[in-house]
Amino acid sequence: MKVDGNHLRTIAPGADGWSVDIIDQTKLPHVFEIKNLRTLDQACRAIRDMLVRGAPLIGATAAYGLCLAVREDPGFEAIDAACEKLSATRPTAVNLNWALANMRAVLRDVEPHRRAEVAYRHAAGLCDEDVAVNRAIGEAGAALIAEAGRGGREMVNVLTHCNAGWLATVDWGTALSPVYAAHDAGIDVHVWVDETRPRNQGAALTAWELSRHGVPHTVIADNTGGHLMQRGQVDLCIVGTDRTAANGEVCNKIGTYLKALAARDNRVPFYVALPSSTLDAALADGDQVPIEERDAGEVTHVTGVDPGGEVRSVRVTPAQSAAANYAFDVTPARLVTGLITERGVVEAKRESLRAAFPEKYAAQ
Amino acid sequence: MKVDGNHLRTIAPGADGWSVDIIDQTKLPHVFEIKNLRTLDQACRAIRDMLVRGAPLIGATAAYGLCLAVREDPGFEAIDAACEKLSATRPTAVNLNWALANMRAVLRDVEPHRRAEVAYRHAAGLCDEDVAVNRAIGEAGAALIAEAGRGGREMVNVLTHCNAGWLATVDWGTALSPVYAAHDAGIDVHVWVDETRPRNQGAALTAWELSRHGVPHTVIADNTGGHLMQRGQVDLCIVGTDRTAANGEVCNKIGTYLKALAARDNRVPFYVALPSSTLDAALADGDQVPIEERDAGEVTHVTGVDPGGEVRSVRVTPAQSAAANYAFDVTPARLVTGLITERGVVEAKRESLRAAFPEKYAAQ
Repeated sequence: MKVDGNHLRTIAPGADGWSVDIIDQTKLPHVFEIKNLRTLDQACRAIRDMLVRGAPLIGATAAYGLCLAVREDPGFEAIDAACEKLSATRPTAVNLNWALANMRAVLRDVEPHRRAEVAYRHAAGLCDEDVAVNRAIGEAGAALIAEAGRGGREMVNVLTHCNAGWLATVDWGTALSPVYAAHDAGIDVHVWVDETRPRNQGAALTAWELSRHGVPHTVIADNTGGHLMQRGQVDLCIVGTDRTAANGEVCNKIGTYLKALAARDNRVPFYVALPSSTLDAALADGDQVPIEERDAGEVTHVTGVDPGGEVRSVRVTPAQSAAANYAFDVTPARLVTGLITERGVVEAKRESLRAAFPEKYAAQ
Repeated sequence: MKVDGNHLRTIAPGADGWSVDIIDQTKLPHVFEIKNLRTLDQACRAIRDMLVRGAPLIGATAAYGLCLAVREDPGFEAIDAACEKLSATRPTAVNLNWALANMRAVLRDVEPHRRAEVAYRHAAGLCDEDVAVNRAIGEAGAALIAEAGRGGREMVNVLTHCNAGWLATVDWGTALSPVYAAHDAGIDVHVWVDETRPRNQGAALTAWELSRHGVPHTVIADNTGGHLMQRGQVDLCIVGTDRTAANGEVCNKIGTYLKALAARDNRVPFYVALPSSTLDAALADGDQVPIEERDAGEVTHVTGVDPGGEVRSVRVTPAQSAAANYAFDVTPARLVTGLITERGVVEAKRESLRAAFPEKYAAQ
């Protein structure tokens, strides 16, 4: 996608051809800074400290982190140690281990002196694959947006929650990929951006990437979507997902469920965009997803920029008050109009998902 | 209610007997400051800039604001001008106009030189009435909490949105009055406090007043309530209302509707506590309520206290991104389990409300 007119991916080899450039997302939207990773340790820190986030981008960073390790020592002892180190940075991120296992399997059959070259080529391939998948999601979703706008004759209002944009992937994003595809095709699309407390991924990341690409958007408090739907100001909702169960139940950022309820109550279509890598056919339903409880500090404190341009964290609650921070909720499949995947729009039902992704269900 | 062991009302005549003391609620929870109002303009500013907020307290402040005006000029031209000025401060607040009409009607039959004295006496009477009404709401609602906890044998989790506590009224509150009554009666009650963006009235005010009174509570992001209800961690919801239509539809802080939807989806009782002064029998349904759009700065900026103890406002969105700030939404009566009023729990239906408050419907 574009930043200040330049095409950019969230991760790419540096100018020297071997180091790795990422965007430090902890500083967005206030500071845009490209960070150059040159060692395995730097890659581990980038994942652990959430300079990069979003399942696909975490996987890509792990793959390139392994490249940096292989370049220094192509022996398998070093490769295994590097995999272990990278794997420990975000223990719950499924894509991370998937990317590492994938890289490791490829390197196994390669002679040591060629491993670095093959590793870089394979990491680049994983990134290109992510881009292609997201592109396909974008095309499938853009058709829905075009339809909502009567083929471009009317402005379309899309509501999204959290950040499932290009910053969460290598490029294009998942939930926002249809928005970019529609916008680039000349459809008049406007996005209601849920602020997305805690952590404010909507206000900080979604708003930033939409503004850089020039897509009209308006940030709203998470409380607002229901009212907008009641007043007919939302044509469709598109959100991402961290994990989708075999029956189509969707685990996503906390608050997704509330928007799905409002969409149902107001007959607004509610779509979930997902690369099939987040479909977990081994998970019968969403009730089995362990909901991560994060630091209460993300609720009690908010980070932003002060009038002097300095990034600061302020406490919004009384010092004596406890806070709880559940990171995800589960949206029942009955509230989901459709799943936008790289193989088209699929019903949020076990049998439909099985038909679209038989290889995922083969082992179940 | 109590602050640091001292009993306090949110509004009361100052030590001089004619000026008016209020709590500057914009500074809570970080600074507790009593502000002394001495002119009509100061009273208008206090309402408009939300130093005082909450329907009943806005009404009380308007009444005392009129006293300050009458004290300077008891002529009816001045009284009408003052009413108009006060009325314009918060267009959605029905109590404001109710209090002003009430005061105006009383002053009509009084000779000019006695109007100030009568105005102050009547404003004090309105305040005492508010306290008595809220007390009655507390008793009716505490019975529901006791019932949810099997008569005190089990802990009860109440979820509330925004601040409808004693800070929103003269004393006791509306939605929180049942909580205080139950807590004071020895029932083990815990409150999930919605942060309530924008403006954070939950994190700032509800958490503060509950902590001062010693009621166990936990602050959560507004996105969280649905998940808690799905997991059985909410026994009942109690919220306040700024305006209730003749058919029982409830206009309250933005986001209330989303919690009502989640309550319905999970069979959690959803109660709205209201003094009958917020019941607007002339309003057929909630669709007719004009929804106040407030400054986008309340969405783009968050105020809190920095580690050095200084109150600061930080921007959480990119500078280029627009934001929208709708202050209220309307919860359909079908989602409301019951209305907790000073005359007991009433069904959210036109005929039930008419039976409970015939005088309100007489003119319709």
